[in-house]
Amino acid sequence: MPVLKNIGYLATCKDEGRQEDIYPITDAAIAWKDGTIEWVGQEIDLPEKYNNESAHDAGGKMVIPGLVDCHTHLAFGGGRSDEFAMRVSGKSYLEIAKAGGGILSTVKATREASEDALYERASGFLEEMIRLGVTTVECKSGYGLSLQEELKLLRVYKRLDQHYTVNVIPTFLGAHTIPPEFKDDRKGYIDLVIEEMIPAVAEEKLANFCDVFTEESAFSIEESRRILVAAQTYGLHSKLHADQLTSCGGAELAAELEAASADHLEKISDAGIEAMAAAGVVGVTLPLASLYTQEQPLDCRRLIGGGVEVAVATDFNPGSAPSYSLPLAMMLSCNQGRMTPAQVLKGATLIAAKAIHRHRAVGSIEEGKSADFAVIDAPDPDFWMYHYKGNACTDIFIKGEKRK
Amino acid sequence: MPVLKNIGYLATCKDEGRQEDIYPITDAAIAWKDGTIEWVGQEIDLPEKYNNESAHDAGGKMVIPGLVDCHTHLAFGGGRSDEFAMRVSGKSYLEIAKAGGGILSTVKATREASEDALYERASGFLEEMIRLGVTTVECKSGYGLSLQEELKLLRVYKRLDQHYTVNVIPTFLGAHTIPPEFKDDRKGYIDLVIEEMIPAVAEEKLANFCDVFTEESAFSIEESRRILVAAQTYGLHSKLHADQLTSCGGAELAAELEAASADHLEKISDAGIEAMAAAGVVGVTLPLASLYTQEQPLDCRRLIGGGVEVAVATDFNPGSAPSYSLPLAMMLSCNQGRMTPAQVLKGATLIAAKAIHRHRAVGSIEEGKSADFAVIDAPDPDFWMYHYKGNACTDIFIKGEKRK
Ligand SMILES: [Zn+2]
Ligand SMILES: [Zn+2]
Repeated sequence: MPVLKNIGYLATCKDEGRQEDIYPITDAAIAWKDGTIEWVGQEIDLPEKYNNESAHDAGGKMVIPGLVDCHTHLAFGGGRSDEFAMRVSGKSYLEIAKAGGGILSTVKATREASEDALYERASGFLEEMIRLGVTTVECKSGYGLSLQEELKLLRVYKRLDQHYTVNVIPTFLGAHTIPPEFKDDRKGYIDLVIEEMIPAVAEEKLANFCDVFTEESAFSIEESRRILVAAQTYGLHSKLHADQLTSCGGAELAAELEAASADHLEKISDAGIEAMAAAGVVGVTLPLASLYTQEQPLDCRRLIGGGVEVAVATDFNPGSAPSYSLPLAMMLSCNQGRMTPAQVLKGATLIAAKAIHRHRAVGSIEEGKSADFAVIDAPDPDFWMYHYKGNACTDIFIKGEKRK
Repeated sequence: MPVLKNIGYLATCKDEGRQEDIYPITDAAIAWKDGTIEWVGQEIDLPEKYNNESAHDAGGKMVIPGLVDCHTHLAFGGGRSDEFAMRVSGKSYLEIAKAGGGILSTVKATREASEDALYERASGFLEEMIRLGVTTVECKSGYGLSLQEELKLLRVYKRLDQHYTVNVIPTFLGAHTIPPEFKDDRKGYIDLVIEEMIPAVAEEKLANFCDVFTEESAFSIEESRRILVAAQTYGLHSKLHADQLTSCGGAELAAELEAASADHLEKISDAGIEAMAAAGVVGVTLPLASLYTQEQPLDCRRLIGGGVEVAVATDFNPGSAPSYSLPLAMMLSCNQGRMTPAQVLKGATLIAAKAIHRHRAVGSIEEGKSADFAVIDAPDPDFWMYHYKGNACTDIFIKGEKRK
């Protein structure tokens, strides 16, 4: 049975207490069997039976649960880096769309790409995310916007989940935007999502969640409710892109539907915070999106103070958050989100796992959970997030297998 | 004579034109001899005499001039990551100082550290910076604050410059803050700086520049002028930490003294911009500092629009900017500083070299300059800074020698 010894600081992120309680153990060791953690504690207390094993050595560094990126749009076609100079110079969304950019350019490029091409590209991103210490990734569709194209994206995620030891958690986001062919028939598209896409996705078991981009400029509260309630009857739990640009009741709807999470939340109302806290909905902060869209970042202290647990994710996508660096999102969640490093660490592990209903299996280093952990070249979470460097992860274990 | 071929996109950053003119060459090659660039152009035009050489291959990637970090406080003792949670939670500077933190804790730890210990630590940082593509680094003293302790820090930089092929450009920053033993005798400390430290630094040729932290809470305009004018008589050119927290005339003083640069500038006045433009003083933006201190970032478009060239640097130090990631500072200069990727690239190479009076030798890929360049895994600057990842540098050449 394998064991990891010589852990200077083990952040267990145990599933109890407050967001800032990461339950560290110093001079620790972990033992596992068949990919499942069997024992966690101070190395001095390691039971004899683990001691005759060839041990992995953490070199006195910090060990954390494998990071969980609970909000990404991993598979897409095309690229939009040529929009960057326009955007930072203050060009409007409309001007950029006229120049051939914006989300519809990604929809077009995604539809033109083959499933294999999308798979190849997404695996490249996934491998780089793994090197950063990520072991579970939520992935949304939403750049296909037709039955076949949405299924194509979700099949890419299914293949990634089968090929990699990493957990890939798929989410159906047909209600991302209205596709061009329905631009004069919103209701027709929403009917298509409800009557054809959701049943087909459920039939093929291609998604665990249904997400909606709830926003004045996207899907209204009424439209979102209709879609998410329909998805629930097919066993797809709810997630929402909510209150990013306007405070339009997205958080309140997430609470009403007992959603797994409401994400973005930059403009969340106090009533929304109260409702989410009462319903136990996880709030997901996406600081890379506010950074790249030059919007005011979310002050996560409002949510945590109001009793909402906050997960940290990248929102990786080719438009508003083109970086998959979860460590950077974590550092920004300190500096801009005003969370402490301990709160951020639990937010990118256990609480992120809650946002995708996987906290029974991953997100903390506890007996019975998956042996997913990352070795970080830092003495503790404060040092790691304070002295930000691109990648401090030196070793990664997924389901007990050492990856790099 | 060595040659680098198969460069998909070569950003020469030639010393002419506007900040956004990076003069790219596609399908390019570079040839050099004894560390000096001899030929730059399209590979198809490479003169025959370079063709029988064993060539390095850039793999079709982008090649840029070696990055220039023109503002760091590289050598220091101790650590302050335990302040991070307090700071993001909104604790005041005074509360943190009372808890044993703040700049004076770094002064204390630096004084207690041996020159060898400071050298070892700083070399570790320097090696990680090199891996990011940095080939020239400005380094400030300022945590010693006594004659012997300031000389100790500057000798660390001299040793680094001698030991590494990287260019280390030392700056004397005795006027960083008033040390505790002079807290009731400001004038006594300033006299010490002027009458003992500056002459000794000049005598040992330990610095090229004299810097002052010009701020209401640090050194006044009058005090700063006195120190910088004295330093000029000893051949030390001026640099200023200016207008970071208040608009107190630092930029105007930089112009009056024809300083090499004025740095920070978050609160610069329109008059300050006009004065700097007229005097040709480089403005240095330090976005990591505003990020970590939760202050409003500088909108660099104001400066560039007003005719000031803007360099991008890290301000790496253990308090307000504890990351040495110049690539991150560059991405933030797009998203928060509102510069285009091309402007940022020239700002972290040629214009940064101007800020330390080294633009005749480094900062662009031109014949006669030092063969310092970095291979970047991206097709162009837009893509590189848009799809931020921790480190996209795959190869680095310093004075013609391949480093990694
Ligand atoms: Zn999203
Ligand atoms: Zn500084």
